[in-house]
Amino acid sequence: MTESELIAHLKPLLPTNDFVVTGAGDDCAVLELGAPDTQTLFKTDAVVEGIHFTAHTEPERVGRKALARCLSDIAAMGGTPTAAVVTLGLPRGFEPERVKSLYRGLNRLAAQYQIAVVGGETTTNPGGWLVNVALLGTVPRGRALLRSGATAGDALFVTGALGGSLAGKHLDFEPRLAEGRWLLEFGGVSALMDLSDGLASDLPKLLAASGVAGAELRKSAVPISREARDHARTSELAKPPFVAAVTDGEDFELLFTVKSGHAVRLLDEWKAQFPSLPLSCIGKLTAKPGILVRSDEGVRPLPTRGYEHFA
Amino acid sequence: MTESELIAHLKPLLPTNDFVVTGAGDDCAVLELGAPDTQTLFKTDAVVEGIHFTAHTEPERVGRKALARCLSDIAAMGGTPTAAVVTLGLPRGFEPERVKSLYRGLNRLAAQYQIAVVGGETTTNPGGWLVNVALLGTVPRGRALLRSGATAGDALFVTGALGGSLAGKHLDFEPRLAEGRWLLEFGGVSALMDLSDGLASDLPKLLAASGVAGAELRKSAVPISREARDHARTSELAKPPFVAAVTDGEDFELLFTVKSGHAVRLLDEWKAQFPSLPLSCIGKLTAKPGILVRSDEGVRPLPTRGYEHFA
Repeated sequence: MTESELIAHLKPLLPTNDFVVTGAGDDCAVLELGAPDTQTLFKTDAVVEGIHFTAHTEPERVGRKALARCLSDIAAMGGTPTAAVVTLGLPRGFEPERVKSLYRGLNRLAAQYQIAVVGGETTTNPGGWLVNVALLGTVPRGRALLRSGATAGDALFVTGALGGSLAGKHLDFEPRLAEGRWLLEFGGVSALMDLSDGLASDLPKLLAASGVAGAELRKSAVPISREARDHARTSELAKPPFVAAVTDGEDFELLFTVKSGHAVRLLDEWKAQFPSLPLSCIGKLTAKPGILVRSDEGVRPLPTRGYEHFA
Repeated sequence: MTESELIAHLKPLLPTNDFVVTGAGDDCAVLELGAPDTQTLFKTDAVVEGIHFTAHTEPERVGRKALARCLSDIAAMGGTPTAAVVTLGLPRGFEPERVKSLYRGLNRLAAQYQIAVVGGETTTNPGGWLVNVALLGTVPRGRALLRSGATAGDALFVTGALGGSLAGKHLDFEPRLAEGRWLLEFGGVSALMDLSDGLASDLPKLLAASGVAGAELRKSAVPISREARDHARTSELAKPPFVAAVTDGEDFELLFTVKSGHAVRLLDEWKAQFPSLPLSCIGKLTAKPGILVRSDEGVRPLPTRGYEHFA
């Protein structure tokens, strides 16, 4: 049983209530807590030693990453983060100095985005370090950018460049909070998510949430990171750059769709607003099932499989 | 360095903002998210295999315990829980059926208290199972019952019976949500917390939060569970029952103070409201430093040390 199959089994069984606007399955939950103009975003995520970082990763960067991953999910709703609580799982015999360093990295990122850290539990975790962050955010009432609003014909966009995150970006990435809020204000966005498992794994989730059958990517338009290209050049065993870009995961860029009529205006206004962050139109959604890649060599199916946690 | 020393170092360094009414250090954080009549409670907590349950514990009870611990913290603010997100850390090669069972136990308790489960992350955790729950709750504006309002002379109360929780209660306890809300409405409560590490460890936290120097307990008034008494009778190595009651931990009962003038009315009204749950007045807070225990044998200091996670 894969992670996706297990989640598909569990999700419909989760209890719900009148506070829930959008439950499990999007980047964040959306809750209605009684504020007149805003709704609340709610997210939890963990990083684990040996999986998301190693015993040699500087603790500051571990703490930073744990929070930044949740921030990326708030960004993917067009929201603004407000308050976090942290659970720290520690192996026996840990060094307290490393805990202080971890919090230094986490606190620094929180302060940068004016986020309060309002609780910090600690527990023993015999297998190694684990940092769980639960994060609240706020979004204008009824305007959260979900994964589920896209339709066939919408243009597909991605921020930044993809692949090669393990070279360092997976620890030091900047969550796209300003960009997510700007996209909400822009108005023409039909669906939005962040790329955490790789385009080949995440795009199918956007399609499934929106009930759209397929997509066609232009291979030359998919932005490939310098790290993915360098790696392919220097290692015989590396994935080809395009494969790395769509399967490496941990990009923490935004993947979103707009009605095709808005695409040109979006690219123009984006360039004025975020001159140092590339925005790429990588293709469009289609009524025809499956994800296809169009290149000089023709049209081929994309193996839709990114990082599967339990594979 | 003990857990308490590490936390004392870390707490003042946590960033804060205008959303925060009460930050880290109470049973829950209290946040101001813009609702006219209510404030939001926010809490995170984890249970870990080998620490809070064993490889042989039924997964339903593990899932239930993970949520129930957080519910106890909402109860300790006089609040009502609303929505939870869950992070599940799984060892490699775990059985998917155990995940389903774990969620069954967690979902059942959530449904019992009309709590929505709005997110469920999964990750590999090489050392074993770990369940983190982050929980939101609601409380009438400005009325959350904090640890910090007690003064010398206040009467000290505890619900239920203490000690021997490992016999089963630590998995199956009923969080004192109705009791917490009722105490908020009762009006005379000056400080409230839940007992998770044992009275000898938790009472000093209430005193410290309130800036009160000490307390005097009446030994005969401290309610001792049947399990703690039975264990003492049947095992040569067991703690004496009173020691078990104040040091075993995981009682998940409410510990609170009221102005002494309200004590008799409280006991009367409690008995009418919660006839099956004992309420005990176990002593009073004092301006004299330290925690003393008064019994037929005289007055002796209480060693103020319960369960220390990193001891």
